[in-house]
Amino acid sequence: MEPTTKHTWRSKLHEIIYEADTPLGKIFDVSLLIVIIISIILVMLESVCSSGCTPEDFRINPQGLLSDFVRLLNDNFFYISEWVVTILFSIEYIARIVSVKKPSKYIFSFYGIIDFLSTIPMYLSFFIVGSQSLVALRALRLMRVFRILKLTRYIGASTNFVRALKTSRAKIGVFLLFVVIICIILGTIMYLVESEEGSGFSSIPKSVYWAIVTLTTVGYGDIAPATPLGQFIASFIMIMGYAIIAVPTGIVSSEMTKFNKRNVQTNTQSCSNCLCGNHLDEALFCHKCGHELHHD
Amino acid sequence: MEPTTKHTWRSKLHEIIYEADTPLGKIFDVSLLIVIIISIILVMLESVCSSGCTPEDFRINPQGLLSDFVRLLNDNFFYISEWVVTILFSIEYIARIVSVKKPSKYIFSFYGIIDFLSTIPMYLSFFIVGSQSLVALRALRLMRVFRILKLTRYIGASTNFVRALKTSRAKIGVFLLFVVIICIILGTIMYLVESEEGSGFSSIPKSVYWAIVTLTTVGYGDIAPATPLGQFIASFIMIMGYAIIAVPTGIVSSEMTKFNKRNVQTNTQSCSNCLCGNHLDEALFCHKCGHELHHD
Amino acid sequence: MEPTTKHTWRSKLHEIIYEADTPLGKIFDVSLLIVIIISIILVMLESVCSSGCTPEDFRINPQGLLSDFVRLLNDNFFYISEWVVTILFSIEYIARIVSVKKPSKYIFSFYGIIDFLSTIPMYLSFFIVGSQSLVALRALRLMRVFRILKLTRYIGASTNFVRALKTSRAKIGVFLLFVVIICIILGTIMYLVESEEGSGFSSIPKSVYWAIVTLTTVGYGDIAPATPLGQFIASFIMIMGYAIIAVPTGIVSSEMTKFNKRNVQTNTQSCSNCLCGNHLDEALFCHKCGHELHHD
Amino acid sequence: MEPTTKHTWRSKLHEIIYEADTPLGKIFDVSLLIVIIISIILVMLESVCSSGCTPEDFRINPQGLLSDFVRLLNDNFFYISEWVVTILFSIEYIARIVSVKKPSKYIFSFYGIIDFLSTIPMYLSFFIVGSQSLVALRALRLMRVFRILKLTRYIGASTNFVRALKTSRAKIGVFLLFVVIICIILGTIMYLVESEEGSGFSSIPKSVYWAIVTLTTVGYGDIAPATPLGQFIASFIMIMGYAIIAVPTGIVSSEMTKFNKRNVQTNTQSCSNCLCGNHLDEALFCHKCGHELHHD
Repeated sequence: MEPTTKHTWRSKLHEIIYEADTPLGKIFDVSLLIVIIISIILVMLESVCSSGCTPEDFRINPQGLLSDFVRLLNDNFFYISEWVVTILFSIEYIARIVSVKKPSKYIFSFYGIIDFLSTIPMYLSFFIVGSQSLVALRALRLMRVFRILKLTRYIGASTNFVRALKTSRAKIGVFLLFVVIICIILGTIMYLVESEEGSGFSSIPKSVYWAIVTLTTVGYGDIAPATPLGQFIASFIMIMGYAIIAVPTGIVSSEMTKFNKRNVQTNTQSCSNCLCGNHLDEALFCHKCGHELHHD
Repeated sequence: MEPTTKHTWRSKLHEIIYEADTPLGKIFDVSLLIVIIISIILVMLESVCSSGCTPEDFRINPQGLLSDFVRLLNDNFFYISEWVVTILFSIEYIARIVSVKKPSKYIFSFYGIIDFLSTIPMYLSFFIVGSQSLVALRALRLMRVFRILKLTRYIGASTNFVRALKTSRAKIGVFLLFVVIICIILGTIMYLVESEEGSGFSSIPKSVYWAIVTLTTVGYGDIAPATPLGQFIASFIMIMGYAIIAVPTGIVSSEMTKFNKRNVQTNTQSCSNCLCGNHLDEALFCHKCGHELHHD
Repeated sequence: MEPTTKHTWRSKLHEIIYEADTPLGKIFDVSLLIVIIISIILVMLESVCSSGCTPEDFRINPQGLLSDFVRLLNDNFFYISEWVVTILFSIEYIARIVSVKKPSKYIFSFYGIIDFLSTIPMYLSFFIVGSQSLVALRALRLMRVFRILKLTRYIGASTNFVRALKTSRAKIGVFLLFVVIICIILGTIMYLVESEEGSGFSSIPKSVYWAIVTLTTVGYGDIAPATPLGQFIASFIMIMGYAIIAVPTGIVSSEMTKFNKRNVQTNTQSCSNCLCGNHLDEALFCHKCGHELHHD
Repeated sequence: MEPTTKHTWRSKLHEIIYEADTPLGKIFDVSLLIVIIISIILVMLESVCSSGCTPEDFRINPQGLLSDFVRLLNDNFFYISEWVVTILFSIEYIARIVSVKKPSKYIFSFYGIIDFLSTIPMYLSFFIVGSQSLVALRALRLMRVFRILKLTRYIGASTNFVRALKTSRAKIGVFLLFVVIICIILGTIMYLVESEEGSGFSSIPKSVYWAIVTLTTVGYGDIAPATPLGQFIASFIMIMGYAIIAVPTGIVSSEMTKFNKRNVQTNTQSCSNCLCGNHLDEALFCHKCGHELHHD
């Protein structure tokens, strides 16, 4: 708040990196987002071209600009660009630590750990062979999109989300525990029924995996019951899964309906005596001080 | 509104093509719908019979009327009928441009672009070989069904739809962004775990594709984890997908519940004596003071 | 209502067959249900044993009662039992026609047609070879369970169901039309993208079938995209399907919430002056006649 | 309640085993949970290693502690540990019978039967060969987690669950019956259509199994329609399944919304002056007459 602190380079850096109300802060956030997306596209391309790419792999005409770009990929392109991105991320990481008053708070925060994990792999590759494959973890940085989005008009929607999910966390936790236990029990029963059929239920963990695949209605089909009894139990599991998918939906629906209702109640007048708000629509007197409310 | 403008041929054409309250307008809309459906059935049949059809392909008795029809298909039938439909659509397109006051407004509207895309492929086939396969895009014209349906009793239902979806657009947008980012992160992790197993996770984009297939509970089974760790992570993704499917449902449910409530409560009047509101639609007297209410 | 009509054999038969408040009516309904279930189990067993059953097929010890029963199945058992069931159903069908005042009303009702379809196949088999396989249509008779259930404590639940579904019928109709059109458009686009890859998208109807399989998150995997572009579009379809499954759920949820609310409001007192009900809980005066209500 | 009974060893045992408010009771519950989880992990490991495990199966470095543990598994480790767990469970079972006043009430309760089933298999193995594979039923004991959880902060969430599910039990029952009957009818129709194609619809029960797999959107793909008509019917089933999944969700959602509403409104007081209710939790004055409310 004091002008003396406000104009040091550190507080300016803080304003640019952590806040986004100023033009410079916005530019920083957007360019950071672009670097993150480019770095993830690079990681994806590298995984596609791990054994050498030709223009034909991308259905591109062998002549032309794009084709030259693809030929480039086979050289040291990925190695060099990984280092460019790593150095950019390192500078950002150091700037974040320097500009904040309590660096430890940033370092051990959710985003601090993600930033660290997405910067370190290339340095590690000097000491541990193969560790550079961990650059793929850079995808975690996409999480930052949400932090940057906070500054846009989506803020209302996100907040409602987070609030509704937080309130229903305990209920959904109990529900998921229930689903997991049901899957362990059903998987075990299917193992007893199907293990001798050679239809993929070769161990209890595999049967539990199958039960989860079935109950959640994913249904890969890599493991499928072969005996009539197994198919009967599977039918039972599916219909059960069909019914209990209603539970988390019901929880979140009712939670969101509640929030909507609460929002309706905060849209009301405020008392002219004590300035308190949050009155019922039909209220005639303030519920805090007993002063008469305005009648519209 | 003035009789002078109303009776020119242009305004009459406009009335027939764009409105549907008059008998002629209704006939035009319905016959347009029939032509669209016939043209799509033709496109479908052509794709089925691209390498020559026999009556046996359709399980039809070789003797009989239907069988003659199928034999017809192998000749120039499709080519001729495509041209008939194209000419009909061209006439409609020109009539729409001519009858509207600002043609550019129609041409660049959603339906204008669809109409153009579904008319042009046959003309293009003179210049670009193979472009007539784009007639398949004619399926887009089915969208017009909704515009025609607007005129029927479904209008209330459609409007509620569109309204509820519009209000929850931002929320569902944030949710889908969240799902995509989660899939990129999980796909990347699965690539690190499974890439050396030869179980289909050959690149990060493919793993992300698998993560989307799994999280949305589609589960083709063309790619499926083979290692215990991979199956464990897959189980985690499935259960998560089972839980977060509740989110869009919750959003739309609460949005629709809100609309319902508003509809119920806005249909009320307020008492002229005590000013209290919240009356039932059928109420004749105020339920607070017993004073008679207005009768409409 | 008059005793003279009530004691003729026809009205008695009507009471037994169509009503279920009397002990005889209940016995008739329950024994009908048992015959239906037995006849369906017979049809199922016959389809399993169409090429001859041995006790080993059912994992039954070759010695013992059950084993004798299985051996019996290979003889004329099914043929005889089909005739027994057919004759029982014929008697019931004739009794229903005889006991009702306007037989045509029963014959052309929903249940009348089902009863006819499930009785006729065995008679038809004298004239048309192979038509007895239509006895499988007897499964349709299970629908009668709902009519019999009407008499039990489930009546409230069923009524709410039917009512909520009826109100949301138009909305769900529009929604399903939308889903089908989306699937036709997406299937057509996938055909253009994937048809030359040999990955199963061999015609537009097949691609539309695949789009439905994908959008509804069923995902058999018999047809799956092979090109990167196809997989990208498929991912888009899946995420869309994940989002729009919220729509029917939202419709039914809000519809049911509405009914619940209405139920709360009908549980209130009735006016001592005009006997009208349906008052708000907080009402002090009758909203029909202005008479003061009882204060509890 | 009398001190004399309270201090006998039996009532103390009862307090430890059945209640969990005392420190000893908590220790007992937690250690029981740990023994259950260990016993289930043992059963799972045994099923994985049924044909002999090597450290390589677990991707463990052949040298080291974990590797020694895996080598141990191939000896009598599982046999001995099963007996240790069985003896622990036997002691608990006897203690539960002894400490309760009416042993028959515990023995025939839900948890009593589960406890018995998970203790008996090893004893049975003396008499019936192979019966020890039933130890897998021990997974049922995981159900006890819910009983132990009752004592934690999740109690509110669980109770709401159970309450909402209990009220909607009848409705969901009718719904599931409806789904099963629809699947039997559709499976029968598909059998008539597809049975001669060799695409897996070899009998009616198998077709019904397929109909359930499809309607619940699981979609293994082990059985899939091959004829155009079959695929058309399958599309119809899928879209129907997509629509009717809304029904259980709607039921539970509306049920939970009801509970939420009730919870919000029952936490209120009524004014001592005008007796009107429906006050906010934070209200200090009546919103109808301005009279001061009771302060708790």
